[in-house]
Amino acid sequence: MIVYGDLQSGNCLKVKLLLSLLGVEHEWKHVNILEKETQSPEFLSLNPNGKIPTVVLDDGRVLCESNAILGYFAEDTHYLPSDSFQKAKVYEWLFFEQYSHEPYIAVARFIQKYQGMPEHRVDEYHSLQSGGNKALAIMEQQLAETEFLVGSTITIADISLYAYTHVAHEGGFELTDYPNIQRWIDEIASLDGYIGMS
Amino acid sequence: MIVYGDLQSGNCLKVKLLLSLLGVEHEWKHVNILEKETQSPEFLSLNPNGKIPTVVLDDGRVLCESNAILGYFAEDTHYLPSDSFQKAKVYEWLFFEQYSHEPYIAVARFIQKYQGMPEHRVDEYHSLQSGGNKALAIMEQQLAETEFLVGSTITIADISLYAYTHVAHEGGFELTDYPNIQRWIDEIASLDGYIGMS
Repeated sequence: MIVYGDLQSGNCLKVKLLLSLLGVEHEWKHVNILEKETQSPEFLSLNPNGKIPTVVLDDGRVLCESNAILGYFAEDTHYLPSDSFQKAKVYEWLFFEQYSHEPYIAVARFIQKYQGMPEHRVDEYHSLQSGGNKALAIMEQQLAETEFLVGSTITIADISLYAYTHVAHEGGFELTDYPNIQRWIDEIASLDGYIGMS
Repeated sequence: MIVYGDLQSGNCLKVKLLLSLLGVEHEWKHVNILEKETQSPEFLSLNPNGKIPTVVLDDGRVLCESNAILGYFAEDTHYLPSDSFQKAKVYEWLFFEQYSHEPYIAVARFIQKYQGMPEHRVDEYHSLQSGGNKALAIMEQQLAETEFLVGSTITIADISLYAYTHVAHEGGFELTDYPNIQRWIDEIASLDGYIGMS
């Protein structure tokens, strides 16, 4: 199995982290987004949307979208509950992550950390702060009530949200305002098999 | 069971459409987004993210995020394959919908149809066209190969993508450029139990 990705990308890290926690063997192929390697004809033939992570299974079948990949590998493990409602709550957080969290926190981080805050994106960067803080406040509210996002057991909801949350300060978000998120980040980082960005 | 929603919203329509196709009884409570009814303290106590659709099950448990709601009701029906890989492909399209389709097509439609194209959003409106057409082109490519988005059977991937795609012209997208999408829209609209925006 080959995983195409870049460990500086939270969307890729979440896949690497789950595979590491589960001990699933794979070959990791680094892809450089800034050099547009995801837009090559070869890469687009794997994933027409030109995004990483992209997984090629041993039989050649291709799977895209980080959170769909998490769902695939988490099935029949304790990272995805078998109860229908609990499973739906996990997916609720995964969709929240892609719509209400990543477009603010990951984009602000990209502008600040990778683009070095270019003048033409400064207004956009500032406009992203309120949406990002709203997402963090919703997570904080949940994590004040439960140990993990869906109850007392870690699921792929936590792995997905962890990816960009634990580096949110690189996008200008002050995590000291969110004590339960900080507690939760520490718990995830202390798991056996944990792997971070590097 | 109560579903809070607005049938002019594709995110709400997709839930209404699946429930109608499955014949699941429910009470539909109309919520007016433009009058900020999703931001009231009562509504925020149901869904801290202040979005519709939001479902309150008979036992009082709450489920949010349109595509997570689809997954919940589709489980153990032919709208969600039981095979792990096929199921993951369905979720791949659901995440594609929320990240690469809805933020372009639904937002352009909102600016054109509901806001009447105000001067301060005209540039944004035009900037959304290329992302929306990219999403439509990816769907067209798949639907040229398979009858539905994941193989030869309708799934919640189709129901989800149908919602904003069939009204994409209201956001300035010319569907005549996508003959397989048009064929697919006609197939969905002819299903027993079909319900549209109204």
